[in-house]
Amino acid sequence: MPVRSFREIKHDYRFTDEDEQRLAGLKTVMDDHADMVMSTLSLWIMGTKGAAQFFTDETRQKHVFEAQRRWFLELFSGVYDNSFYEKLIKIGRVHVKFNVDAHYMNRAMNIVKNSCIDVLQRTEEEKEEYTNKIISLGKLLDISLDVITTAYIDEELKTYSPAYKVKSALIAFAERFSQSMNLVLVLALIGLTIGVVWLFVIDGGKLI
Amino acid sequence: MPVRSFREIKHDYRFTDEDEQRLAGLKTVMDDHADMVMSTLSLWIMGTKGAAQFFTDETRQKHVFEAQRRWFLELFSGVYDNSFYEKLIKIGRVHVKFNVDAHYMNRAMNIVKNSCIDVLQRTEEEKEEYTNKIISLGKLLDISLDVITTAYIDEELKTYSPAYKVKSALIAFAERFSQSMNLVLVLALIGLTIGVVWLFVIDGGKLI
Repeated sequence: MPVRSFREIKHDYRFTDEDEQRLAGLKTVMDDHADMVMSTLSLWIMGTKGAAQFFTDETRQKHVFEAQRRWFLELFSGVYDNSFYEKLIKIGRVHVKFNVDAHYMNRAMNIVKNSCIDVLQRTEEEKEEYTNKIISLGKLLDISLDVITTAYIDEELKTYSPAYKVKSALIAFAERFSQSMNLVLVLALIGLTIGVVWLFVIDGGKLI
Repeated sequence: MPVRSFREIKHDYRFTDEDEQRLAGLKTVMDDHADMVMSTLSLWIMGTKGAAQFFTDETRQKHVFEAQRRWFLELFSGVYDNSFYEKLIKIGRVHVKFNVDAHYMNRAMNIVKNSCIDVLQRTEEEKEEYTNKIISLGKLLDISLDVITTAYIDEELKTYSPAYKVKSALIAFAERFSQSMNLVLVLALIGLTIGVVWLFVIDGGKLI
């Protein structure tokens, strides 16, 4: 249950329209190099004992590698909305479900970052633009890891701690309650306004 | 209680001697720009409601900003040993104690990274070396966040969940027990060897 909106997170990272456009502009080159980036990632996973242990089942391995590829390609769609946010939250939760240490998610993100910088180095000539692209990309990947980590922590706490579960439910209820109260207030105000106008009309009618 | 050694973490990130030397080589330039980097960070903290709320007390603010500065300068010491590792673990734990969301640690790390890239852009001419430095720096900061996050999760679980506390204590005990058993085995083997040699000598003595 994330209490922070995606808008707030993007604002905290000063993730601007310029960043979004810059990333969307990388779509073609990153699509072309997706195989390279993803094979760097999967080679590392399969070569790391603690990470490879989750992939003894071949079907699952294929499923996860395909999901990673879809996630990677979406990074450069230029659309970073609530659906993008919710997918990241789901990634964090799924990793708790399969008991994957946060360490592996951190390193995976670092590998993707390094591979993308490698691609940029070979395709981008102008130094200032090269730097801007590295920073925009870094922001997007750091935001992604941030959301994944937060969802991961939240889910793990829920799994381990019944007290935390109750607290989360209470907060969710309080939020929904306060939203309903806002609605009630607005309706009451509308009623009040109509009443005042009506009294005004009645009184006006008496005067005539 | 980290079960992963710092050696393993550095290996997972392929953090080599070359990376270490490259970072140590940045010491002078980063010392010179420490004020700039730290003021970017503190300006962001004080301008972000959720982060600034921890700094209403001026003494604490001074204390934390000084601690952040010391941490930043140590990044370029070139020494990344167990003491470096333990300091990171402590950072993670302290953030749980003061109830700081993981989100703020993530963004703080991103700001430091971006500011350092900015410094490098202005001081490093050669493109390949520029890229190498960005990647070495990124690895070090990502490793740092990784360790901080892992310690943070561990500490938060302990705070919320008595069951997790018992599990952690059991694992720690099991590790210590297995280490003592190793010692017992080594001692037994030494005893056995001495015994065999002694029997050999006795038998040899009888033959003469």
